[in-house]
Amino acid sequence: MIRNKNIDKIQSSYLFVEINKRKVAILEKNPNATLINLGIGNTTEPISQHIAGGLKLGVENLQSLETYTGYGSEQGLDILREKIATKIYKGVIEKDDIFISDGAKCDIGRLQLLFGRDVKVACQDPAYPVYVDGSVLIGATGGYNGVNYNGIHYMPCSPDNDFFPDLSSVGAGAIIYFCSPNNPTGAVATKEQLKTLVDFALKNKSIIIFDAAYYAYIQDNTLPRSIFEIEGAKKCAIEVNSFSKTAGFTGVRLGWSVVPKELKYDNGDSVRDDWNRIVTTIFNGASNIVQYGGLACLDSVGLEEIDVLVRYYLENANIIKSALDSLGLEVYNHGNAPYLWVYFKGEDSWDVFNNILNKTHIITTPGIGFGPAGSGFIRFSSFGHRSSIEQAANRLKNSEI
Amino acid sequence: MIRNKNIDKIQSSYLFVEINKRKVAILEKNPNATLINLGIGNTTEPISQHIAGGLKLGVENLQSLETYTGYGSEQGLDILREKIATKIYKGVIEKDDIFISDGAKCDIGRLQLLFGRDVKVACQDPAYPVYVDGSVLIGATGGYNGVNYNGIHYMPCSPDNDFFPDLSSVGAGAIIYFCSPNNPTGAVATKEQLKTLVDFALKNKSIIIFDAAYYAYIQDNTLPRSIFEIEGAKKCAIEVNSFSKTAGFTGVRLGWSVVPKELKYDNGDSVRDDWNRIVTTIFNGASNIVQYGGLACLDSVGLEEIDVLVRYYLENANIIKSALDSLGLEVYNHGNAPYLWVYFKGEDSWDVFNNILNKTHIITTPGIGFGPAGSGFIRFSSFGHRSSIEQAANRLKNSEI
Repeated sequence: MIRNKNIDKIQSSYLFVEINKRKVAILEKNPNATLINLGIGNTTEPISQHIAGGLKLGVENLQSLETYTGYGSEQGLDILREKIATKIYKGVIEKDDIFISDGAKCDIGRLQLLFGRDVKVACQDPAYPVYVDGSVLIGATGGYNGVNYNGIHYMPCSPDNDFFPDLSSVGAGAIIYFCSPNNPTGAVATKEQLKTLVDFALKNKSIIIFDAAYYAYIQDNTLPRSIFEIEGAKKCAIEVNSFSKTAGFTGVRLGWSVVPKELKYDNGDSVRDDWNRIVTTIFNGASNIVQYGGLACLDSVGLEEIDVLVRYYLENANIIKSALDSLGLEVYNHGNAPYLWVYFKGEDSWDVFNNILNKTHIITTPGIGFGPAGSGFIRFSSFGHRSSIEQAANRLKNSEI
Repeated sequence: MIRNKNIDKIQSSYLFVEINKRKVAILEKNPNATLINLGIGNTTEPISQHIAGGLKLGVENLQSLETYTGYGSEQGLDILREKIATKIYKGVIEKDDIFISDGAKCDIGRLQLLFGRDVKVACQDPAYPVYVDGSVLIGATGGYNGVNYNGIHYMPCSPDNDFFPDLSSVGAGAIIYFCSPNNPTGAVATKEQLKTLVDFALKNKSIIIFDAAYYAYIQDNTLPRSIFEIEGAKKCAIEVNSFSKTAGFTGVRLGWSVVPKELKYDNGDSVRDDWNRIVTTIFNGASNIVQYGGLACLDSVGLEEIDVLVRYYLENANIIKSALDSLGLEVYNHGNAPYLWVYFKGEDSWDVFNNILNKTHIITTPGIGFGPAGSGFIRFSSFGHRSSIEQAANRLKNSEI
């Protein structure tokens, strides 16, 4: 058996391996150090009794002959699709365009099989790694050139362009990955910016894959929570979404994607029909138990609880931001995302990472790990229990990083 | 955006659409008919209090700060991997070679990204559709020629060859899909047959993807429940497996794959390392709640309950078999699988399907839906509640099909 040449192209997951190596090294030097992890974007707060009740109902349904269910629709429970349509999309999106998944990352993997290898790929830089890595796996890219992958159009997003990319050099007929609120920068695109993006995609027969996993963190009501708030988006966008960062379902695994019936290929064929074929062929639906948890998340009590949870992590972000501000650092966060993106001009991300780790025992993520345009930046995650966050803030304030 | 040419190749899921159409038609003609579905292989019996307890523990863990977990390892909980290694593989397979999944179908989808499109594919005929459809999606095949896909090596399995294919015409360096106990035929390969298969793969630098999802249905202790009971298999096989048909987790979603460290490409690189990269890149682990259910399935009480459940469906198979035998039909099932494969010599599968549906109001699956070699056969599934199964058996006995 010959090794798949696309696997051969993909770089080893250097970032977290390297972070872990440095973590081990500091613990060897300081065996009693209490490290605080503001690296990974992982939820820490327990789920409520109400949402747990939904999950337990899902289990109890399986215990009697009358309510037991085996295979469900690969597209998900109709009642959950309906609830997402009405509660999250306020009827702008219809039930049949919503496909329940086991999470955004997994759906981005499956989207590779939808679009295949003969596509151009454009991607924000910096970005969540799966857009690029998924494209490499399907064979839509060339090899790694030491900085990034040939054949991917990287779109730098930095303070210089208000974190909104220059689209003029993106070719026609491309898949454009766009994440807002952005991981890692925390930037949220405005309505005007997304209008520019949608108009560009329509004009250039491109498809936007819009990652809205952090939508609930948007507190500013003038900012769009969904690409489908933009006119014309149904004809050029797929939205990938998740319960992970809103309901704390990171380990529970539940998400959805919206593939509007209006989305067509150049020849007029339906993209949604093909997505339905992908989902029914290589997926078997999210867990029925977990989908009942999703239902509980979307009733009035659940939505209120999600709101409280989101504000908790946003307050964490505020606390870290104040500490970083007090050091006079260049911090990017406007209160609509759980990440702080901090610029250390002229410095190397890994040197800054080391400096913070050595002086404060706080683990962060070097911006370079998200793409070349992340060079010189550090991402602070605000996912953590309040006591750790306050401790981290105190360490930062009293440090000389 | 141009439509992906691999999606363009794949045929619409004609089988179940067509079955449904005929079901609707008969209900229009006979509005009061009580149809019995022996078509789909879907579990019907509730899960036990013990296994539900494991699932509920998974939920309860999420309710307190001390036991809450967010993202877990993409490879699954260590304790679950360990338990599969010891309880199912009796230590023949090590924990690190086991990757927990959300089901066999989903892992077969991901395996496409592991091996890519530049492979030869060989597949039993008839077969569970995802092997072929997945291969089409990744681009490893040619187009559909009206009967099957060009570029796939179909290996007919019929009573004439004791359901074990002639391997002599399979090329070297191939991916060989093999399912035992087989869906749809119910045939179980013997140790000698699997030895032939393993020796062939070793000699021809091929990799077997062994689907063992029905392993627990094997009651005859001389028959192998895993490919890894065969010497040399670790160097040439991946085993895909599931809790669906054993614990009734069809809707709960839990499975695993075994990728042994001994499995190498021709150049000596590790297949397991690449699989690990795939799993960490486009998957985020099975639900933590569901994995706790898996743990309950594998303790002594759970294993005993699985055994009882498996025997229940096997007894169903016996009941249907007796009814079919009484009609003098040519029935293939030796008590080690939940499917009955029935030959109607010289007849068209769809005609037989129609005849059974019209005369007994029982839905089956036409063998042709699993591949050209299924022509003339009908699959009866034995998944059903006992009262339905008995009713179906009575209808069959008194029919003139």
